[in-house]
Amino acid sequence: MLYIADTRERGRALREEIESRGIPAWYVELWGNYIVATPPGSKVEGLKTPVKAVVDLKTDYQLVSRQWKRDPTPVKIGDREIKEGKIFIIAGPCSVETEEQILSTAKVVKEAGGDALRGGAFKPRTSPYTFQGLGERGLVLLAKARDATGLPITTELMDPEDLPLVAKYADAIQVGARNMQNFTLLKKLGRAGKPVLLKRGFGNTIDEWLLAAEYVALHGNGDVVLVERGIRTFDRTLRFTLDVGAIAYAKQQTHLPVIGDPSHPAGDRRYVIPLALAILAAGADGLIVEVHPDPDKAWSDAKQQLTFDQFRELVAKARELARALGRS
Amino acid sequence: MLYIADTRERGRALREEIESRGIPAWYVELWGNYIVATPPGSKVEGLKTPVKAVVDLKTDYQLVSRQWKRDPTPVKIGDREIKEGKIFIIAGPCSVETEEQILSTAKVVKEAGGDALRGGAFKPRTSPYTFQGLGERGLVLLAKARDATGLPITTELMDPEDLPLVAKYADAIQVGARNMQNFTLLKKLGRAGKPVLLKRGFGNTIDEWLLAAEYVALHGNGDVVLVERGIRTFDRTLRFTLDVGAIAYAKQQTHLPVIGDPSHPAGDRRYVIPLALAILAAGADGLIVEVHPDPDKAWSDAKQQLTFDQFRELVAKARELARALGRS
Amino acid sequence: MLYIADTRERGRALREEIESRGIPAWYVELWGNYIVATPPGSKVEGLKTPVKAVVDLKTDYQLVSRQWKRDPTPVKIGDREIKEGKIFIIAGPCSVETEEQILSTAKVVKEAGGDALRGGAFKPRTSPYTFQGLGERGLVLLAKARDATGLPITTELMDPEDLPLVAKYADAIQVGARNMQNFTLLKKLGRAGKPVLLKRGFGNTIDEWLLAAEYVALHGNGDVVLVERGIRTFDRTLRFTLDVGAIAYAKQQTHLPVIGDPSHPAGDRRYVIPLALAILAAGADGLIVEVHPDPDKAWSDAKQQLTFDQFRELVAKARELARALGRS
Amino acid sequence: MLYIADTRERGRALREEIESRGIPAWYVELWGNYIVATPPGSKVEGLKTPVKAVVDLKTDYQLVSRQWKRDPTPVKIGDREIKEGKIFIIAGPCSVETEEQILSTAKVVKEAGGDALRGGAFKPRTSPYTFQGLGERGLVLLAKARDATGLPITTELMDPEDLPLVAKYADAIQVGARNMQNFTLLKKLGRAGKPVLLKRGFGNTIDEWLLAAEYVALHGNGDVVLVERGIRTFDRTLRFTLDVGAIAYAKQQTHLPVIGDPSHPAGDRRYVIPLALAILAAGADGLIVEVHPDPDKAWSDAKQQLTFDQFRELVAKARELARALGRS
Repeated sequence: MLYIADTRERGRALREEIESRGIPAWYVELWGNYIVATPPGSKVEGLKTPVKAVVDLKTDYQLVSRQWKRDPTPVKIGDREIKEGKIFIIAGPCSVETEEQILSTAKVVKEAGGDALRGGAFKPRTSPYTFQGLGERGLVLLAKARDATGLPITTELMDPEDLPLVAKYADAIQVGARNMQNFTLLKKLGRAGKPVLLKRGFGNTIDEWLLAAEYVALHGNGDVVLVERGIRTFDRTLRFTLDVGAIAYAKQQTHLPVIGDPSHPAGDRRYVIPLALAILAAGADGLIVEVHPDPDKAWSDAKQQLTFDQFRELVAKARELARALGRS
Repeated sequence: MLYIADTRERGRALREEIESRGIPAWYVELWGNYIVATPPGSKVEGLKTPVKAVVDLKTDYQLVSRQWKRDPTPVKIGDREIKEGKIFIIAGPCSVETEEQILSTAKVVKEAGGDALRGGAFKPRTSPYTFQGLGERGLVLLAKARDATGLPITTELMDPEDLPLVAKYADAIQVGARNMQNFTLLKKLGRAGKPVLLKRGFGNTIDEWLLAAEYVALHGNGDVVLVERGIRTFDRTLRFTLDVGAIAYAKQQTHLPVIGDPSHPAGDRRYVIPLALAILAAGADGLIVEVHPDPDKAWSDAKQQLTFDQFRELVAKARELARALGRS
Repeated sequence: MLYIADTRERGRALREEIESRGIPAWYVELWGNYIVATPPGSKVEGLKTPVKAVVDLKTDYQLVSRQWKRDPTPVKIGDREIKEGKIFIIAGPCSVETEEQILSTAKVVKEAGGDALRGGAFKPRTSPYTFQGLGERGLVLLAKARDATGLPITTELMDPEDLPLVAKYADAIQVGARNMQNFTLLKKLGRAGKPVLLKRGFGNTIDEWLLAAEYVALHGNGDVVLVERGIRTFDRTLRFTLDVGAIAYAKQQTHLPVIGDPSHPAGDRRYVIPLALAILAAGADGLIVEVHPDPDKAWSDAKQQLTFDQFRELVAKARELARALGRS
Repeated sequence: MLYIADTRERGRALREEIESRGIPAWYVELWGNYIVATPPGSKVEGLKTPVKAVVDLKTDYQLVSRQWKRDPTPVKIGDREIKEGKIFIIAGPCSVETEEQILSTAKVVKEAGGDALRGGAFKPRTSPYTFQGLGERGLVLLAKARDATGLPITTELMDPEDLPLVAKYADAIQVGARNMQNFTLLKKLGRAGKPVLLKRGFGNTIDEWLLAAEYVALHGNGDVVLVERGIRTFDRTLRFTLDVGAIAYAKQQTHLPVIGDPSHPAGDRRYVIPLALAILAAGADGLIVEVHPDPDKAWSDAKQQLTFDQFRELVAKARELARALGRS
């Protein structure tokens, strides 16, 4: 249940009153609302504190549901905004490797019309023997690229202990697919003070993805962007199966922005552009895509990163498609 | 291996010469070529019959591969053509139910700008207790709708014995997902004299789908259109997971047309339009979509069939998107 | 709904009376019962013909449900029986290749304590270029092996047209995974007069498998054995994922025998014995397993067929395990 | 590559020498060996430090491979051992709830012949609104149950920060399926000084699971037990699809113990015993299973926990089956 109050004081009073009835309750201020959340179905009658509205949903997620908050929530990344009706493009290399690499990429992303720069400093790797990222040095290089271009930067956080460090540099924090149900991390991101790009786990359902967003929101942070990046299916021809149905569904279920990552499902740069366009056509509010000055020599994900020329082609086509569908 | 001859006589002689060496060989005339096909890897040296070209591929499928036939193959359905660069829209009800139902739908499909009419007369149903289709009566009604509108008609064949009957009425014959590896059926369709719309099985890989097309082609019929319609994955939020990656991949691997069915993966009409646009954006040459005068009362697939208004909206958006991507 | 009558005459009268009310109804005599089946939920009140029992189930399958027929149904194959509490072992090569191959295998199967001989004469093959089976010649060789050993024989039917031919030779007819939803075939097997071994499709749910058995039963044949043989999942380390949960579940849902095929999910003979034991431990009533005199030279499925020695080891372990679990 | 030295000094010298050649190298002492590990394929020639053996594997995992360490590795939990040839049974409630609940369960586990007690104090929950575990209070109760019965205890760790706390109480630390690729956690468990029960992620391949074990081993901890607990597949009839093939495969690929969890894939206590027996028949070295004094009232996983009587039945059957297969 969600109980909406009209002031902070009443919200807090409400939380106390409900808890005094033996029901767990959380108080959060999100998207301009003073909200007390309790477990779905746990309706409390006869409250003394005035309540502006009570929201009773059939879904397990509540705060992030579009059933009570019909207007789409924009999320600010640096000085720009991901919002419904626009196409927001985040691009950059899989891993930050060298100053030259990240600076040259940032410039191309900027010139081609990208909105933000991505780059991995802490890399979740299946094998302990492969490159694990530059760590803080990578964050420093990302910040330089931001200084040089004005693009906001996004990067992945793996270890909850690194949150202060990552938050110091990044304009938005990525949660990787393998950490989508790392609830410790999600709870801490509730107090991060930075927007979160929440990738869908490749073994997770859409509802679990929305519930992961609910974790972040319930712990205080309403600036969550959902990122579809492909799931594991019996067909392993491409690296993952991009689930455009999840985008179409999520856009109707949540007021949060939904974007898509065409690089990981493609696994091969020949398929990135068609997948990117499919993501947008399915209704996504943007893309996060890998691009590299010399992909074949990349330290990770060499096969799937776009060349600069391919990235320019992608942005041009994405803008055309957006216009055709009445977006911009 | 494919051995291309420059005349029919030489093609046939080639087949005999190769078989005399103990290698199985098939002779087919497809897309203007005289072709002898042998199992992949079975190269024969020192042939006496003149050979125009020898094609040695690393894939299991050969005839349908785009590696040797770079130009896209158009497939004629009635007096119209599915071909790369255009968007071909097939629409109609899941099942043919009544004369009024199919005629009113056909008119709307025609007026809205659809290219062909679909309708099921023989229905593959999971349960033996549900409606199994009108049978020949359904075919007769489809033919009436063609007469009334000029639209070519497509319908599913289930029983190989019904091939003459279905071929008598239909302009193109659909193979359902559950029959994609019904090899008996595929072989007979090689001699059907009608184009085949080959749906991908929901448990089948992309390569198996291409090999199913190879079955039809090797038995004499090169007019095959591949139809992606969603696969089974752990996520059952929507009915199936539409695999747009399969479209992007298949378009590069085969010269045959590839279209998509947004209705079955959506399973709910609220998601059909975004999935349809994603199919086209991923590179498909068209759509096959379910539409019904009064979907909630449909005898099968009630939830996922579009209303007439939704269908008109879909066609308009599809045409806009096609133009934006340089297609028509 | 199932309406059980106490005589054939009353059963037929019942079917007519129900149909006269506009409800589709089937009359079948199965497992000693005179049964009229109608679609689930379609209850008819006030019937004049006497009814012994009315069965109203919540599942889509009815005849094969264990909810109304609690005692397990034994299925006779030749002069032997698959029945709960016993372990029935069917073994033989993937494909019948030569007389010597099938005869030597049959002898080993017999001596090691197997109950029936399997061998493919019509082979469903993913590629049109690979060996498609010996056809009738394979059936003749199987019959010779039966004559030599007394073992009943089982073989796959692909083309409904071949039913009379296959039924002439085989003691039980296999439906392959790719044909589990070939409804034309299933209906014809309802009138085959031979028991059916119904493999689960690798993309099909357990309920769909039970409904496929319902198709056969509703069309007149109650001698159906369900065969779990692995499904397609994101993990392709082994060839398929053996679903022992499906065995445990099916054993509780249906009165029909359930057996398992460890060869296809293993895909490699090193894993066949552990999978076979897991099948039995999960509650299956038997096994169907591939064994070959010289597996590495087999014309199909070379990697997964057991050697004779491995097969003897499997039978010995299976019998030990059965005894430990109170079966025989 | 693995380089085995015959003393600690030589091992350390080796690591330095290899690193001086610009190759990343780790030094670990595991299972009585002095090992330097480098990335697979990175062979160094002409080393001056004496090397006892060099291991060059084709797999991405190395330390945990059975190709170089053929003898099975036993893992000690408290004063007991999980080892090949024996059946180790860990049982207990999903969540620790009350002192009475955990004490009564521990006594039954002990009396029935179980080897260790499990119980969740920190619970990974899909929804932020559901019971998240008693935290340290749960650990204290587990320790009381150990005191009362002598059974070693195992419990899950979610937050790396809680490692000292959990290690203080637990005899073995569980990594949940959702954390299998939480590499931060895995690395820290390398220095935990306690054995690790590593559950397979429900979206992870077998090789990824072995690589997760490699993470723990490479960071210093060789006491890892692999736990198969079901994967996500298109069939959602049971809660997860138990992958017995993964057990059969892992037992051949790694020298570490492999056990199985029948409770989570079953999702319903009616299927737990058959799945448990299938796990053992496939070759697993033990079980981890949920049991509760009054399952229907459990605070989590109510449907799938066994009653005490069912647990006794399971242990009796498991022991019978083990004997039949020559284990104990």
